Amino acid sequence: MSDQHVSHLVAIVGAANVLLGDDTLAYVTDYRGVFRGQALAVVRPGCTEEVSAVMTYCYENGIPVVPQGGNTSLLGGSVPDTSGKAVVLALTRLNHIRHIDELNATMVVEAGVTLIAARTTAEEAGTLFPLRIGSEGSCQIGGNLSTNAGGTAVLRYGNMRDLVLGLEVVLPNGKVWNGLRALRKDNAGYDLKHLFIGSEGTLGIITAAVLKLFPRPRAVCVALLGVETADAALQTFGLLRQRLGTDVTAFELISEDAMTLVLSHLGRQHSPLMTLHPWHVLVEMSSTATQEDADAIFVTTLSEAAERGLISDAAIAANEKQVADFWLIREEISDAQTRTRGSVRCDVSVPLSSIPAFIRETSAKVLAAAPETRMVVYGHVGDGNVHFNPLRPGNMTPESYLNRHGDSITRIVDQAAMDLQGSISAEHGVGTAKRDELLNVRSQVELEIGWRVKQALDPLNLLNPGKVLPELPSAA
Amino acid sequence: MSDQHVSHLVAIVGAANVLLGDDTLAYVTDYRGVFRGQALAVVRPGCTEEVSAVMTYCYENGIPVVPQGGNTSLLGGSVPDTSGKAVVLALTRLNHIRHIDELNATMVVEAGVTLIAARTTAEEAGTLFPLRIGSEGSCQIGGNLSTNAGGTAVLRYGNMRDLVLGLEVVLPNGKVWNGLRALRKDNAGYDLKHLFIGSEGTLGIITAAVLKLFPRPRAVCVALLGVETADAALQTFGLLRQRLGTDVTAFELISEDAMTLVLSHLGRQHSPLMTLHPWHVLVEMSSTATQEDADAIFVTTLSEAAERGLISDAAIAANEKQVADFWLIREEISDAQTRTRGSVRCDVSVPLSSIPAFIRETSAKVLAAAPETRMVVYGHVGDGNVHFNPLRPGNMTPESYLNRHGDSITRIVDQAAMDLQGSISAEHGVGTAKRDELLNVRSQVELEIGWRVKQALDPLNLLNPGKVLPELPSAA
Repeated sequence: MSDQHVSHLVAIVGAANVLLGDDTLAYVTDYRGVFRGQALAVVRPGCTEEVSAVMTYCYENGIPVVPQGGNTSLLGGSVPDTSGKAVVLALTRLNHIRHIDELNATMVVEAGVTLIAARTTAEEAGTLFPLRIGSEGSCQIGGNLSTNAGGTAVLRYGNMRDLVLGLEVVLPNGKVWNGLRALRKDNAGYDLKHLFIGSEGTLGIITAAVLKLFPRPRAVCVALLGVETADAALQTFGLLRQRLGTDVTAFELISEDAMTLVLSHLGRQHSPLMTLHPWHVLVEMSSTATQEDADAIFVTTLSEAAERGLISDAAIAANEKQVADFWLIREEISDAQTRTRGSVRCDVSVPLSSIPAFIRETSAKVLAAAPETRMVVYGHVGDGNVHFNPLRPGNMTPESYLNRHGDSITRIVDQAAMDLQGSISAEHGVGTAKRDELLNVRSQVELEIGWRVKQALDPLNLLNPGKVLPELPSAA
Repeated sequence: MSDQHVSHLVAIVGAANVLLGDDTLAYVTDYRGVFRGQALAVVRPGCTEEVSAVMTYCYENGIPVVPQGGNTSLLGGSVPDTSGKAVVLALTRLNHIRHIDELNATMVVEAGVTLIAARTTAEEAGTLFPLRIGSEGSCQIGGNLSTNAGGTAVLRYGNMRDLVLGLEVVLPNGKVWNGLRALRKDNAGYDLKHLFIGSEGTLGIITAAVLKLFPRPRAVCVALLGVETADAALQTFGLLRQRLGTDVTAFELISEDAMTLVLSHLGRQHSPLMTLHPWHVLVEMSSTATQEDADAIFVTTLSEAAERGLISDAAIAANEKQVADFWLIREEISDAQTRTRGSVRCDVSVPLSSIPAFIRETSAKVLAAAPETRMVVYGHVGDGNVHFNPLRPGNMTPESYLNRHGDSITRIVDQAAMDLQGSISAEHGVGTAKRDELLNVRSQVELEIGWRVKQALDPLNLLNPGKVLPELPSAA
């Protein structure tokens, strides 16, 4: 039976693009090696028509399909389960930039285009595609869309959902919906693209998208600030927004423990600030003004923050090299944790006004439960999004720390976020890892609507089964 | 039977809030008097719980429900059909601002809050709710959401869909979905709010929303430009976006005939430009910079446009009074048309890069079909959205012009927009007026997905029946 399926799939995409056995390994395991599944085959279609033919075949034969982009999910969203029944549909070969329209400020790209390729193409056309996340070299636009990717420029430009005007989607039954509209305004009926964005491949296969482009900033200003409390950081953010408006592009918090960790990882003696502070903020402003004008208002505003006693110290990047250097500190925190091993990773969000209380109370609870934990707390605090990642004390092994405290810390952090009307997954999505947790944090009504939408679009439950939607006690 | 329904409804909302007979007239007719229906009753619940109870009763008794806000729909979206079977659910009494959070830049408002009240509340808190449409005095937030309202600040701030973080919705069966989340980032499951935004009350009753607030600009710069071609206008737009970035808040085109019409309507001899041009542009920049700094870059950029030969003339508003005065010209065009009578109103959008071709070719076709037509063309051209509203020649009665040319002009304009991958309803929605037209401009696949979503959420088809979704030949 399986052989028969394989030969049909080979007839559609060619033998070179149907991988079996050991050749599937890189596709059935996530890049961190945490989630391991099995697949009937990995199929790599080369165009939308081939995606459609594969989906039609799988639909008619009841074969589950797991769509996959760069396979950079942190939550198991992009790999199959262990049954070996599913086909992994790798979109890698749909990697063409179809069209760029500079005046309309749009770009039509296929799902398998990497984020870096999309960004570079926009840049070469003198414009900007603003999504900025750590995995940009390997993640793909299709994955960015299906997970509604976030990152370090959300503050100014929004999440991936906000960066797209139209989609081309292959439905579970193989039909193609051409919604590749490049319009800023279109109220002629339901806006269907939002069904597919952020639904992690459970409702349809995104094969191409019309992305929004933005004026490329002429000036970029970056500073590292030392602040004494999270509350002072938030007040600084409020002041910057008032003075600089939406030019405030990133506002990233870094705790003292996070800074200590990353400096050691980078082999540096100190940050650009020379001394450590309880909290640090990496702030970026970008502007279409001249660099000179932008520098002036940036420095004036930071001076005002200092005069008000909100910040204790500030280092301003003097050139592009320093801009990159400052950002490296922020970007390497995640890797520093991975290499140190033994951190509990929580990706939560709360309303901005609740950030100080969230951090204060949650830190206290975690330290009470797991004394001497290093409070590695950082993230996109301008969006209310904190990577709250408690790290083992130096004198404890990763295994003993995670075994002893892992689950309870996750519960403490997630509960604290929910108590403040927050989210247990601000930007990383659900996948399999957080699926069942939704039973605790979403209402029955909300979960039921989700399942009704799922059944409407994927009645046979073939698309990325077991992801996002938790099984309901009273099976919907 | 009907009496029994009425007494049940009275038991829920009180006798004063169940209107019958002649008291329903203002609710069953749209404000222009174009669409006239009948209702079993008009019910005005005072809170979400009452909405839920009314919906539950209607669901259990198979009573259709037509939700209504300010009843300012141009397309019949907010009034019932002539069967007299439906209840009109007026959300007017849900008019409370529940909460404002300045640091989080959010405001929780109920569906019946008027747009002007929401804007004013934001302003009094030193912040900005940016939606700006002509009907702001009477339209309500619930209607703005269910129609994804647009208007004159979309260029900078987006459509209504982009201005909301969370919703509270009563489902057709009366269950309440509390999705009032005030988070910039939340990827914990499907983003259900987008189902309800823009679906014109066919999937659920929006009872409250978390709206985004923005930094209030310190500076506003407005100019009226004279340009010789639509192409030059578009090139000017490109230059402004490069130089001023997202501070370009509005870019409104006004044709010579539109200018002549509105000046006569306002009883003015001339515009601030003194002479007429083939095209005029009202441009607004807003900025958190000081007025002095903003003025400098605004003037410099307009000078650059003049040096490049893109604009022939420019008048810059010198003070707030002039800002209002310049805007009045743009805002009164619609009323000038209504009073003149005999215009065919088309609300289309195309990619920005296609605007010049669209205007040129469509004007030629309309003039060929209906000679001496006045080409009243204006709108949010920075969004690719044109109100293309051919007006009768002065020597023809409104009736004879509309009878003779109305339908054919609509077909010409809509077809031209579709030929350029545009939309036949950029911001006004579908309602009943454009419902069947969707059969011609949307694919079967797209219409089928719409119906599947409708059936998933409103299986008895009780919510605003006959709106938005056209009957499919092969009934889905």
